[in-house]
Amino acid sequence: MTQLDAPAAADTHNTAPTRFVEAGDNTFAYRRFGLPGEPPVLFIQHFRGNLDNFDPAITDALAASREVILFDNVGVGASTGKAPNTIAGMAADTARFVLALGLAQVDVLAHSMGGQVAQQLAATRPSLVRKLILVGTGPRGGTDMVRMSDYALSLFTIPFEPADLMWIPIQFSGSEAGQAAGRAYLKRIRARTDRDSDVSAETAMAHAAAAAEWGRPYQRRDYLQRITHPVLVVNGSEDVIIPTVNSFLLQQELPNAELVIYPDSNHGAHFQYHERFAATVLEFLDR
Amino acid sequence: MTQLDAPAAADTHNTAPTRFVEAGDNTFAYRRFGLPGEPPVLFIQHFRGNLDNFDPAITDALAASREVILFDNVGVGASTGKAPNTIAGMAADTARFVLALGLAQVDVLAHSMGGQVAQQLAATRPSLVRKLILVGTGPRGGTDMVRMSDYALSLFTIPFEPADLMWIPIQFSGSEAGQAAGRAYLKRIRARTDRDSDVSAETAMAHAAAAAEWGRPYQRRDYLQRITHPVLVVNGSEDVIIPTVNSFLLQQELPNAELVIYPDSNHGAHFQYHERFAATVLEFLDR
Repeated sequence: MTQLDAPAAADTHNTAPTRFVEAGDNTFAYRRFGLPGEPPVLFIQHFRGNLDNFDPAITDALAASREVILFDNVGVGASTGKAPNTIAGMAADTARFVLALGLAQVDVLAHSMGGQVAQQLAATRPSLVRKLILVGTGPRGGTDMVRMSDYALSLFTIPFEPADLMWIPIQFSGSEAGQAAGRAYLKRIRARTDRDSDVSAETAMAHAAAAAEWGRPYQRRDYLQRITHPVLVVNGSEDVIIPTVNSFLLQQELPNAELVIYPDSNHGAHFQYHERFAATVLEFLDR
Repeated sequence: MTQLDAPAAADTHNTAPTRFVEAGDNTFAYRRFGLPGEPPVLFIQHFRGNLDNFDPAITDALAASREVILFDNVGVGASTGKAPNTIAGMAADTARFVLALGLAQVDVLAHSMGGQVAQQLAATRPSLVRKLILVGTGPRGGTDMVRMSDYALSLFTIPFEPADLMWIPIQFSGSEAGQAAGRAYLKRIRARTDRDSDVSAETAMAHAAAAAEWGRPYQRRDYLQRITHPVLVVNGSEDVIIPTVNSFLLQQELPNAELVIYPDSNHGAHFQYHERFAATVLEFLDR
């Protein structure tokens, strides 16, 4: 297979054009940049996030020595189609996207609901994944994952003006340092001028159902034993969206996982400690 | 205060002479090497360990850019005195040793029971400690800490020939990689020719009582709130001596702690992954 639309090495997070690839009935929107090479790092996005919610501080840091691919899954942003209401459906769509690019294998860096998709992808299509980085996520049937806390739900339902202010309490700790990191993150993700489309209410509803099904308690999770890939699990000390203990559970139950938990941080700890995170990821991928 | 017996920069783990310093009624045995500078890194040893159980792969890696101090606490190895039977007593002795060297502050790298001593030291003498690295340890009243499991106890009671073979099942995972790392560790700690004395049965009994008192369940541990120092918590995925969940608890309850858990590893994960561990420690100390 050949790689379509190989990137210009000079592109960055903010300049890489949005490209499109057909896979079956769907058109996937994606951006691709960095040092060409295999396997590239595929980023899988969180709930309510599109191409513009990835952090350029992380993607550009990785792009200095790796090829980076960001994409909108089916029904998200500029990608077409109806979003599936299961994690399994989202993982199957992700595999179709990867194959449509002509790639045989990717490293995966996935956040939150994206980390659930990544686990499912690694368990069901193991050869498609080389290494896995799971940030702010949890296993099937993890602790307090079937529904968000009332506090967390409120962050997705009360109006923020502008709307992206919602990401500060969702992703960052309440300390002065956490709030400052949140403002810096917003500044970074607002910098790109050529913007992706918002996630629709229909897609958000389907994805919320998918995450809830994944989070139902008392599910078997022997699927984790099939993920023999090297895994780096990362979270903040107090994740208000997917409780931090779920990252510990992932480390304990995956056969080959390393865990990093940062102090004074929340669901987006990797945005808050992006320099340390990028260095740790690169060391993990290069190992 | 002046620093006594400053080391020769050319000394290494295996060549640094054993030195002695008086503090009150006790004589403390210690070794000191590396790049002179403040604060030095003070290593606090595990149960049944003496000066020769520190890992030269770690101490020499740190010594390239830090000053390293290894010591025998009261009643251990070549140090004199009767070992106290509380962690508080061991922490008070540690403080006396540090002050006897004329040091105002140290970074502390502590393992297992040594990590309990380090927590107590940081909580009661906070200005004496700059940063804290806690490996394979747990908080007061942690999970399953009041006594070891029958399996773990057996490792300390069945005869190994030679005796230091006991450290392989205590410190390393049972996998092929873990066992190979254990053999490499034994080779490293056997290399020094000028050996310390074994830990006596009386000292082992006193220290076992101290660790059990620390581990009694249902104790308050608000002392952790007083440890506002930057802390790096490290453990293996399956610590058979102090269950790994206790490292997660430390991260969750300390105000400013980062956690790293390695895959396929046990109580001595830092020995098994000494290169990664030393790099992480140096980054943490330099930060």
